[in-house]
Amino acid sequence: MRTIGFVGLGAMGLPMARNLVKAGFATRGFDVRESARTAFGTAGGMGVVSAAEAAQDADALVLMVVDSAQAQEVLFEAGALNALRKNALVILSATCPPVPVRAIAERVQATGRRFLDAPVSGGTVGAEAATLSIMAAGARKVFDAAVPVLKAIGDKIFYVGAEPGQGAAMKTVNQLLCGVHIAVAAEAVAFAEKVGLDLRTVLQIVGNSAASSWLLRDRGPRMMEAEPEVTSAIDIFVKDLGMVLDAGREAKAALPLAAIAHQMFVSTSGRGDGRADDSQVIRSYRLLNGTQNRTTSDT
Amino acid sequence: MRTIGFVGLGAMGLPMARNLVKAGFATRGFDVRESARTAFGTAGGMGVVSAAEAAQDADALVLMVVDSAQAQEVLFEAGALNALRKNALVILSATCPPVPVRAIAERVQATGRRFLDAPVSGGTVGAEAATLSIMAAGARKVFDAAVPVLKAIGDKIFYVGAEPGQGAAMKTVNQLLCGVHIAVAAEAVAFAEKVGLDLRTVLQIVGNSAASSWLLRDRGPRMMEAEPEVTSAIDIFVKDLGMVLDAGREAKAALPLAAIAHQMFVSTSGRGDGRADDSQVIRSYRLLNGTQNRTTSDT
Repeated sequence: MRTIGFVGLGAMGLPMARNLVKAGFATRGFDVRESARTAFGTAGGMGVVSAAEAAQDADALVLMVVDSAQAQEVLFEAGALNALRKNALVILSATCPPVPVRAIAERVQATGRRFLDAPVSGGTVGAEAATLSIMAAGARKVFDAAVPVLKAIGDKIFYVGAEPGQGAAMKTVNQLLCGVHIAVAAEAVAFAEKVGLDLRTVLQIVGNSAASSWLLRDRGPRMMEAEPEVTSAIDIFVKDLGMVLDAGREAKAALPLAAIAHQMFVSTSGRGDGRADDSQVIRSYRLLNGTQNRTTSDT
Repeated sequence: MRTIGFVGLGAMGLPMARNLVKAGFATRGFDVRESARTAFGTAGGMGVVSAAEAAQDADALVLMVVDSAQAQEVLFEAGALNALRKNALVILSATCPPVPVRAIAERVQATGRRFLDAPVSGGTVGAEAATLSIMAAGARKVFDAAVPVLKAIGDKIFYVGAEPGQGAAMKTVNQLLCGVHIAVAAEAVAFAEKVGLDLRTVLQIVGNSAASSWLLRDRGPRMMEAEPEVTSAIDIFVKDLGMVLDAGREAKAALPLAAIAHQMFVSTSGRGDGRADDSQVIRSYRLLNGTQNRTTSDT
């Protein structure tokens, strides 16, 4: 395992690919945006102009694209799969629903190549620091072979099952919790605004009690800013909670809280705020309640 | 501030009253249950047989009753208010909605006595260890006078506003988050069961990621037990999320996630599980999804 193709040099993919270079893998990276390819070249990687070129004779191909449709296009239409070495390893790290992941795994394995379902969490901070959590599923031998690659990009590596799709399912459970935790933090902060509480005191109290969540502590302060820095956009949760609900429908599981939370992200995006920081889902609550961002207007 | 009357020696009230005794206050405690009065006597307090007797000539009266209706009954019908010293301090620590708290404050203050709205959080563990969080609202001088009493029962004492009712509002925001966090943890664990993931691995991953909440880490493992120890009952959240929704309706604030979470607790209680541990809200999800508690049935 020495040569790696990497497709999708975005906010997550670029730092992940850089960490593969740092770990000593000869890494060829492709992204449709020339600026991303250039940035990867500057970091010591090799930017190439097609997915097939990235995959050419590589030992492994890491996919950090937007969704399963892009993964299918890269592998089966853009020629990346057939460009790989015969027994190469395809590592799908994009956030995808379980069903298409299983379908992709079958098509990859039908060519004699190996497949690992390996979504990540930890955000851009974890991607930069190589401290991502990785939820991997696939044959145990395939997982073992992938470990050196996974260790270059993450430090919490979990084997969640032998069936491709189980990693995707695990990531779905994770995103269900994250999406609802952001939305309920917004619901609570907007309610506190409506009843006239001091928001700094509110966040101090709930952030240090049984009411706390990781995302409440992280996003809560940004809910008091009018235009906070974007660490993850509203549209990411429009997509990810949509994926959660698709997976729930597929499995016939009722997800009422996820469904409501999704509506709040969808409506925020529908008003043109899809690229705002995901803390700004609170804007939908403020519109419903007829309130202003008091902290921002105070200062 | 030397003599304290205490009404409501329940799972929270009894250890709180004991901590007042330990701190050197002469404390008379009343509860309708004789066993609770006896337990308080054994701990060095003085158990008395009426609320008025507990309040007789006391410097302060702490109310840790079930709800605002009980607080009103104790103060205005059972004669506790008029039994207090003329400038005594009434500390209402029960979880009540903001509106009745404001009404109670006015009636107390009309007799020349002082009032502090001071709900607590931290559960029975915090009550035993005198590490409760206290969210106090009232005139600043009243708060300052109450601090020695509050310090005997809690170690995180917040002044949230000058108006009685603001402490209750703060506790409402806190309970909104707690109730939704328990319900969404159940939604996520039940979904993981439905798609066949190993629940111990699931909790290990989400408990150590951005998906974590305090209540997910605390209640998650109990969701895998068939009959876990009861640390806080389903019916507490039937009541508390009901109070959250009442406060939302009063303020005209939309609380869609809290409303859905409440339905899950209500239906669990409606099947006769109101006294089960609140982690067992997952039973409603299992019924919806047609799943079993796999971990318990596995073992």
